[in-house]
Amino acid sequence: MGQFDEEGLRWLGFLGVYSGRKVEGERGGNIGLQTFESGEGSTETRVSDQIRGGEEEISTVWTGGGGRQSGRMAVVGNTLELEVDYFSTQGASVRKLEKEFGNKLGNERSNAYPAVTRGSCIYKYFPTADERLLEYDIDKVVYEQRSQFQKILIVHSRSLGNLLLLDDLQNLSESDLIYTETLMQRGKENYRGKEIVILGGGDGALLHELLKEEPKYVVMIEIDELVMKAAAKYLRSCCGDVLDTLKGDNYEIVVDDCVNVLNTYIQQGKSFDYIFGDLTDIPISSNPQGETWDFIRSILSLSMEVLKPEGKYMTHGNGASCPDSLKMFERQLTSLKVPVEFSKCKAFVPSFMEDWVFYQIWKKN
Amino acid sequence: MGQFDEEGLRWLGFLGVYSGRKVEGERGGNIGLQTFESGEGSTETRVSDQIRGGEEEISTVWTGGGGRQSGRMAVVGNTLELEVDYFSTQGASVRKLEKEFGNKLGNERSNAYPAVTRGSCIYKYFPTADERLLEYDIDKVVYEQRSQFQKILIVHSRSLGNLLLLDDLQNLSESDLIYTETLMQRGKENYRGKEIVILGGGDGALLHELLKEEPKYVVMIEIDELVMKAAAKYLRSCCGDVLDTLKGDNYEIVVDDCVNVLNTYIQQGKSFDYIFGDLTDIPISSNPQGETWDFIRSILSLSMEVLKPEGKYMTHGNGASCPDSLKMFERQLTSLKVPVEFSKCKAFVPSFMEDWVFYQIWKKN
Repeated sequence: MGQFDEEGLRWLGFLGVYSGRKVEGERGGNIGLQTFESGEGSTETRVSDQIRGGEEEISTVWTGGGGRQSGRMAVVGNTLELEVDYFSTQGASVRKLEKEFGNKLGNERSNAYPAVTRGSCIYKYFPTADERLLEYDIDKVVYEQRSQFQKILIVHSRSLGNLLLLDDLQNLSESDLIYTETLMQRGKENYRGKEIVILGGGDGALLHELLKEEPKYVVMIEIDELVMKAAAKYLRSCCGDVLDTLKGDNYEIVVDDCVNVLNTYIQQGKSFDYIFGDLTDIPISSNPQGETWDFIRSILSLSMEVLKPEGKYMTHGNGASCPDSLKMFERQLTSLKVPVEFSKCKAFVPSFMEDWVFYQIWKKN
Repeated sequence: MGQFDEEGLRWLGFLGVYSGRKVEGERGGNIGLQTFESGEGSTETRVSDQIRGGEEEISTVWTGGGGRQSGRMAVVGNTLELEVDYFSTQGASVRKLEKEFGNKLGNERSNAYPAVTRGSCIYKYFPTADERLLEYDIDKVVYEQRSQFQKILIVHSRSLGNLLLLDDLQNLSESDLIYTETLMQRGKENYRGKEIVILGGGDGALLHELLKEEPKYVVMIEIDELVMKAAAKYLRSCCGDVLDTLKGDNYEIVVDDCVNVLNTYIQQGKSFDYIFGDLTDIPISSNPQGETWDFIRSILSLSMEVLKPEGKYMTHGNGASCPDSLKMFERQLTSLKVPVEFSKCKAFVPSFMEDWVFYQIWKKN
């Protein structure tokens, strides 16, 4: 099986959608699944439409791919579906098969799914915020490590450059300057001479970009040292050299839980002009329950205590495709002990392949 | 089965990738596929790792979804893979299942595929130029018709608006002004007082945008009247009212094969300042054979004969992800009877979800 390690198993499927009336009459719905398989040395797979119960045998021959293949058929709703698994990296003839099979069945609609690669050393499928499936043009695993806090993966995408994934969520790629610039509202906010805290931000991109704006001092509080080490090496076009040392002329990186550090700031009476929440995404739930929402509420409350009266809290929300989740975040904002106002904006983030929403929050006076 | 028509069957899969050494030793590769199914009324599916031949039984319980479920298991390369089909629209617990199963198997890596919807009335999966799988946020079929020339489908995407698909290829959405503006090089080319031909362009967007630049006259030659009728109704934010009539003050739409019309122009000695090739994409092959390449070469040759000495031929190429295909197109350009020069540029087209390459071609003097 060694030859499949690189490219993996390709899955092909195609779909014939029939008018509801036609299928209800002729087929009657649920027939379960049938598995069939061609011989080890065979170069073709014979597909028979056994769902008509022998009344009319429809068969077509799959000659693409070669080698071992298998497939199965199902009727779901008013759809007849055929999947073909093949151990090959050639996939061009699936459309031919779809057309051939569709014509024989006299279907009104049919579609061929692009092949899904499985069994590859390189995993290429990640979802959007609203759980749509996206296949990335990933051609190499660059770094892979499980830290005490999360799974850290950096892969190379042909169109995005290196891409950081934390616990399998797209985090930042070398093509995502727009993410950082929208988060910091470059050109709209003035950071010159300001005191700034970054909560999280382990990839170093935000720190790197903020330092270009000549702030007085930036403190970045990141819990996971391993993310910073990986970013310093493999996301250097994003973070420059800011992660090479924990202390620079006008910045400092604290490796700690930001809740601890914020509590210490409150005790010390320390305050800041800007606080950046560059932590976990807000959850995709319309119910403000659970660990992550508690964490987000706690961070917001602590941050408001540390923020100067005219200061701003800058953060990211979630995909524009998740309005319920965003509404829920906004409801959290209106229920904070300290009354706040906020603005928001969105940007298409290349590595997310979707529009993302960013918030700017300040205390009502 | 009626209740699945709207949302369709959800397919879930997860993937556990093992170190090559470990799997080679313990499992030895090909075990084929196993199909298992829970009872009709059952709310769980028991998954046993039978591939270890009974030596060690590993089982996990799938409690999500409810209703009828089925799955299968396979070892491919150094991957153990489990697929779960469930007739439900709830998919949240697949990550829990992945973690549970992965822990029991002691795997080093695992991934949960986002669910693939099947058997839905609305087909949502389309590929990039390099055949990557993309799931679109399509929530409605707006128009569907098979013309004499092609399958015309207009669907509604929550993030893109209405989206035109011709023979299942993404063509133009209401969010794709950048496509038209890059094709016409808005701001870089001056169309005022110019005589222009559009080959194809049935969605009307290019004609609509060109007319804003005050050209002398535009002729658009589109073979498929049905595309224009559909666009006039459902892509009105792209084409305005230009498709409501075949003849305007300074434009005309000819319903014909553009090869015929170009030949007539050559016979008549007619020439133009700009010709737009807004026809089929160039093929994703690195071999300049076949019908489509013949067509592209023929269109280019005829167009060069109709183009004024200082005129320009503007066209789209293919995805930036297909450099071989683009190189092949450029080689066609250098082998034309009339020597030409060209420039190119790219733009991220929202409905393609990738960078697309556009060409500007002129006769060498």
